Amino acid sequence: MKVEHIGIAVRDLSQSNTLFEKLLGAPSYKTEAVVSEGVTTSFFRAGDTKIELLEATTADSPIAKFLEKRGEGIHHIAYEVTDIRAEMARLRQEGFTLLQEEPKRGADNKWVCFLHPKSTNGVLVELCQEITED
Amino acid sequence: MKVEHIGIAVRDLSQSNTLFEKLLGAPSYKTEAVVSEGVTTSFFRAGDTKIELLEATTADSPIAKFLEKRGEGIHHIAYEVTDIRAEMARLRQEGFTLLQEEPKRGADNKWVCFLHPKSTNGVLVELCQEITED
Repeated sequence: MKVEHIGIAVRDLSQSNTLFEKLLGAPSYKTEAVVSEGVTTSFFRAGDTKIELLEATTADSPIAKFLEKRGEGIHHIAYEVTDIRAEMARLRQEGFTLLQEEPKRGADNKWVCFLHPKSTNGVLVELCQEITED
Repeated sequence: MKVEHIGIAVRDLSQSNTLFEKLLGAPSYKTEAVVSEGVTTSFFRAGDTKIELLEATTADSPIAKFLEKRGEGIHHIAYEVTDIRAEMARLRQEGFTLLQEEPKRGADNKWVCFLHPKSTNGVLVELCQEITED
């Protein structure tokens, strides 16, 4: 499994875009709203991995709740998989707790599924797979 | 800048090695103590990026303090740079707060320098550069 991206919760996407442009030396290449999750996202390249900034757009967004509880910071690690349903079955079998029964649509044209951080050393883990048209 | 590794604070390295082997589908390939930092580390490959598990070996280790305050979870993101002193100067100039004046020796044969999370949206950022003998 490769690290596809690292998700970072931020309060103000515009300010954080400026900050991460300074840090990484290159601007965000894409902004995308995910209405179902109540977030606006912004993507940066960092070698073979992406940095995804996440700003909440609704009060009950998971990102709003994270910011309230923990403040700004790293929110999740996303691993790219080639067969998300097979990987979900394997990890369920291994004793991990999945937060979805079925893959759902996430940002950046991906099927995603999250693992509960209680089963993964406090790390919110995302599995993601590119959505293809076949 | 590419993401060289993601550091994760854990309470019990042996248990977490088993957990991450199940998650990532391959075992840790290296364990290394960094006495100066009061940690034992364990490394996994995840594509082009590594996962570094960190267990505290002393009560005043930064990892012991992190676990006490936040519990287990993602501790830092490390970016690989080719000239750490130049990058430190650039980031200082950009307004980031550096936690070291000079690069120090870290795990995995690297020069490292950390940026204060208050200047980076709550993310503890490590810069790292392979130590060479010239």
